[in-house]
Amino acid sequence: MMSAAVAAPNLARFASAESQEGVLRVSGRTPLTYGGDINDLQIAWRLTGVADGPVVAALGGISAHRVVFSENGLQGWWDRLVGPGRALDSSRFRVLGIDYPGGSGLSTGPQPGDPFPSLSTYDQAHALAHVLDHLDIRSLHAIVGASYGGMVALAFGERFGTRVARLLTIGAADVTHPLATAWRSVQRHIVRRALARGDGAEGLELARALAMASYRSAEEFAGRFRQPPARDANGVFRFPVEDYLFARGADYATRYRPEAFLALSESIDLHAIDATRVRAPTTVVAFRQDQLVPVTDLRALAARLPAGRLVELDSICGHDSFLKDAAQLAPVFASTLENDP
Amino acid sequence: MMSAAVAAPNLARFASAESQEGVLRVSGRTPLTYGGDINDLQIAWRLTGVADGPVVAALGGISAHRVVFSENGLQGWWDRLVGPGRALDSSRFRVLGIDYPGGSGLSTGPQPGDPFPSLSTYDQAHALAHVLDHLDIRSLHAIVGASYGGMVALAFGERFGTRVARLLTIGAADVTHPLATAWRSVQRHIVRRALARGDGAEGLELARALAMASYRSAEEFAGRFRQPPARDANGVFRFPVEDYLFARGADYATRYRPEAFLALSESIDLHAIDATRVRAPTTVVAFRQDQLVPVTDLRALAARLPAGRLVELDSICGHDSFLKDAAQLAPVFASTLENDP
Repeated sequence: MMSAAVAAPNLARFASAESQEGVLRVSGRTPLTYGGDINDLQIAWRLTGVADGPVVAALGGISAHRVVFSENGLQGWWDRLVGPGRALDSSRFRVLGIDYPGGSGLSTGPQPGDPFPSLSTYDQAHALAHVLDHLDIRSLHAIVGASYGGMVALAFGERFGTRVARLLTIGAADVTHPLATAWRSVQRHIVRRALARGDGAEGLELARALAMASYRSAEEFAGRFRQPPARDANGVFRFPVEDYLFARGADYATRYRPEAFLALSESIDLHAIDATRVRAPTTVVAFRQDQLVPVTDLRALAARLPAGRLVELDSICGHDSFLKDAAQLAPVFASTLENDP
Repeated sequence: MMSAAVAAPNLARFASAESQEGVLRVSGRTPLTYGGDINDLQIAWRLTGVADGPVVAALGGISAHRVVFSENGLQGWWDRLVGPGRALDSSRFRVLGIDYPGGSGLSTGPQPGDPFPSLSTYDQAHALAHVLDHLDIRSLHAIVGASYGGMVALAFGERFGTRVARLLTIGAADVTHPLATAWRSVQRHIVRRALARGDGAEGLELARALAMASYRSAEEFAGRFRQPPARDANGVFRFPVEDYLFARGADYATRYRPEAFLALSESIDLHAIDATRVRAPTTVVAFRQDQLVPVTDLRALAARLPAGRLVELDSICGHDSFLKDAAQLAPVFASTLENDP
């Protein structure tokens, strides 16, 4: 199998002295875990931060992408935790990001009307390994992964034990919880049926509105949305929380592809790795208010890991705490990234 | 305002020696809490159990109806708790049930294509009071209400303090929680948009599938649905929990009207009563695993009630425990129904 970097149409090859981007093409057929394959798989990557620092891959939820923190006019998705002087300090570490295959970025993803093969988190781990090969990175200092990115980190740890020295996962278990699968399977039905009607964006708006109701905690919603409803122009009552969910849903639908949402949402629910085979020291961060990944599942994961360490935190931001709660996460990042395993 | 009993088309006036049914018509305009009115409001009721027993109204969720327990070939909705020898013993008490106005039963409800005015739980309480007037019941021995029925019980307790001696509410607060409103507002968007496309039943199937994910607890889903997914005939992965949700959703869509679902779902979210004005002794039952009605809200309700008693229970059935957990509820029914307030 041959690899070659190709420049994507709208992509500056070197965005600054310290940033590199590219789209790696894996020539030929890349077989997938659940059958099928992808021809000439493309994987968009971005490497930034201090030039000679230890390399840390930072992977987020299914809406995350290769721009981990904002710089050079690009909008990052993890600015509270990653960047110069932040918990993952780009002035000390080199930060690697990717666009997930199957997603809405520049990596190979579903095309409208074209069903995409089912993707495993193992497939994402292999994509990351291809990027490491291409960049001549023998071993990562760490993978810091949250939500879907934490699942990919665990899959990578199982499959490529010699290529990462430590893992830090947040809000990610070894197996998906059936209640979370319940919420997501409804979201996928909404999107699939909307696509079948030719109105995928409307389906994605609804599905994202529903997803937003699972990302925070009951406590946070109670604090923000206790005001009474008001009638809209048609005389229909609108609840404050409803306005919030649908504003976020509508915005999301302008930025993401429904088919890509389907592919990565399914990939979350297919996730099931063998934690006993993850050799790298792994810090498992659990937020007790996470509705999607119950703390009990993360206690079980930490117990199954050969070198697991559990950190339990409280935050009203629930599953979204990995994006919000820099104050509590910073010391966990420090203790994980600085220590010699 | 005049009241008159009228026989509904398919309704036996006296189903047995001990059962009475009827449809009460409230002639003229019945004004509603949020504006608008209903002309010639009809309220279907059923009175059964021992002929001269103290009368207990039993009110359930938005899908409940006037047949509280199964008898004479009619299917009841609360068989585990109500009936001969059960926790609410129909051989000792007279049991009153109603079809909620706005719902899918024989009471006045929305007609296809005809927007129904917003309904308050106070409006349901007034409907119940009309039935009591019609049946010459000056005061109820108790209202036992769960979910939406518990909200109606509280609204009745506030408005008709002299007409009920005690309340027993299960999984019902004085104000709806914004996270539950979030789940339900997505359900209503699904149904409204489906109705606008002329496919209300499909929307109701999806909305009910989503609702099912909120009725039980994470623990219960984890115990039942951990099996891996299987591919369907089209090669698409189907998860066990997904099969469950959509089987229940499809069944529901054959039995209920989408417009009625909209009316009563909205009524839940509009619910907000003043607990400090509920004079009747009230037993508030909270299941700690209830995803829709957090135990913290029920502790606050019990504290606000002038004569509130809180009973906290654990059950993996979550919000649905009122239908399932007869073992734990029976002693609470006994202590509430037997004691002299």
